[in-house]
Amino acid sequence: MPRYKLTIEYDGRPFCGWQRQADQPSVQEELERAAAELDGAPVTVYGAGRTDTGVHATGQVAHIDLEKSRPELKVADALNAHLRPHPISVLLAEEVSDDFHARFSALERRYRYRIVNRRAPLTTEKGLAWQVPQALDARAMLIASKALIGEHDFSTFRDAQCQANSPIKTLDDVWFEGQGGRIDICFRARSFLHRQVRSMVGSLVDVGRGRETPEWMTEILEAADRTRCGKVAPPDGLYLTAVSYAD
Amino acid sequence: MPRYKLTIEYDGRPFCGWQRQADQPSVQEELERAAAELDGAPVTVYGAGRTDTGVHATGQVAHIDLEKSRPELKVADALNAHLRPHPISVLLAEEVSDDFHARFSALERRYRYRIVNRRAPLTTEKGLAWQVPQALDARAMLIASKALIGEHDFSTFRDAQCQANSPIKTLDDVWFEGQGGRIDICFRARSFLHRQVRSMVGSLVDVGRGRETPEWMTEILEAADRTRCGKVAPPDGLYLTAVSYAD
Repeated sequence: MPRYKLTIEYDGRPFCGWQRQADQPSVQEELERAAAELDGAPVTVYGAGRTDTGVHATGQVAHIDLEKSRPELKVADALNAHLRPHPISVLLAEEVSDDFHARFSALERRYRYRIVNRRAPLTTEKGLAWQVPQALDARAMLIASKALIGEHDFSTFRDAQCQANSPIKTLDDVWFEGQGGRIDICFRARSFLHRQVRSMVGSLVDVGRGRETPEWMTEILEAADRTRCGKVAPPDGLYLTAVSYAD
Repeated sequence: MPRYKLTIEYDGRPFCGWQRQADQPSVQEELERAAAELDGAPVTVYGAGRTDTGVHATGQVAHIDLEKSRPELKVADALNAHLRPHPISVLLAEEVSDDFHARFSALERRYRYRIVNRRAPLTTEKGLAWQVPQALDARAMLIASKALIGEHDFSTFRDAQCQANSPIKTLDDVWFEGQGGRIDICFRARSFLHRQVRSMVGSLVDVGRGRETPEWMTEILEAADRTRCGKVAPPDGLYLTAVSYAD
């Protein structure tokens, strides 16, 4: 059976998240339905990572096995036709060898968290960014973020429901982008704990608001204690932007 | 009566456009309702420019006269509270002298037209950009756009319903922004004809698709003939981004 790697964008707002659930619409379910309509047989979609309710993706990766081989462009176009009108879009379909696995072959994942720092409510970006009304000190946030880079016990930034074997992860990089009241915080790591990015961002925003000092970030990280975490940032601003593989 | 200049952002999707109409929701109507709720009396909102159905703004300007003087921050916050849940947001309220007029004092208007050049449908940006599936030659579009700069008879790019006295306008500048499959075309002029930007963008995309040469843009401009215009671009990608005044 031919295997296809899919690069997928979606708007997380109408979904309970990536993962199929019995009673709520999920991204995985819509993709599986679309793939089954294309292939004429049930298809399982394996994603590189789960995203929570309301979290978006511009570069999620998944793989599917189809009964019948088809040109890559046809696979993407047909899936997109079957996905309509759901806000899920297959950006790219690539035929890959059958030892490729979207989740287990992944070497690196990237997330972007979008903050709009202004008093006025959002309009076109409602649900697509976190509007923070209090003036943020982006420099203090940047300094605080540097403490997170490297191998650490990230228990402070780990959701109680996290199913990972260990709270020890290596965060390869954190960097800031954006201008004119926009602060995008970008993260790169092999893998992340459940709600790790939103937990780190919420705490960074506590620093940005001046409620805490940049040094406090090191303190709460070293405490390895979930109760020390700041307010978890809402899903609105979070995007899974890329998943990388060998070659 | 104190006069306030308002800088306004809105998502054009749910509205029939800026201007109040008898039977459809408009941006002006919602702003007038919110201002009346704040002031306890009917308020007229004067906008710098009308936008069509589905056209967005990140920097529309309007002015209102209120019965009662209030701090600028209070005016913006109260209007935003009364505007909820409509996707209209007052970014800034500034008290101005009573000879300020949002429309007649305006010296310059800026528009941005956002194109996403890819086969895959839009998700988070649906209705917020024009997705063009055919590969566009942005360089050819840029060359073609330069013919539009300066004082011209823009009849070719003027909607039949345009109410301007003359088709002669001066386009001060056109420039391109964007990367990675994104083409933002930005326009700057004292004023524009009805549907002028969408008409120019539609014709530029005909050049980008290779259906027409860059020289064709000069030809159709010089023809000053509406029937020579390319397909008018959809409202989705159009944003009124700024209106400028003296000081």
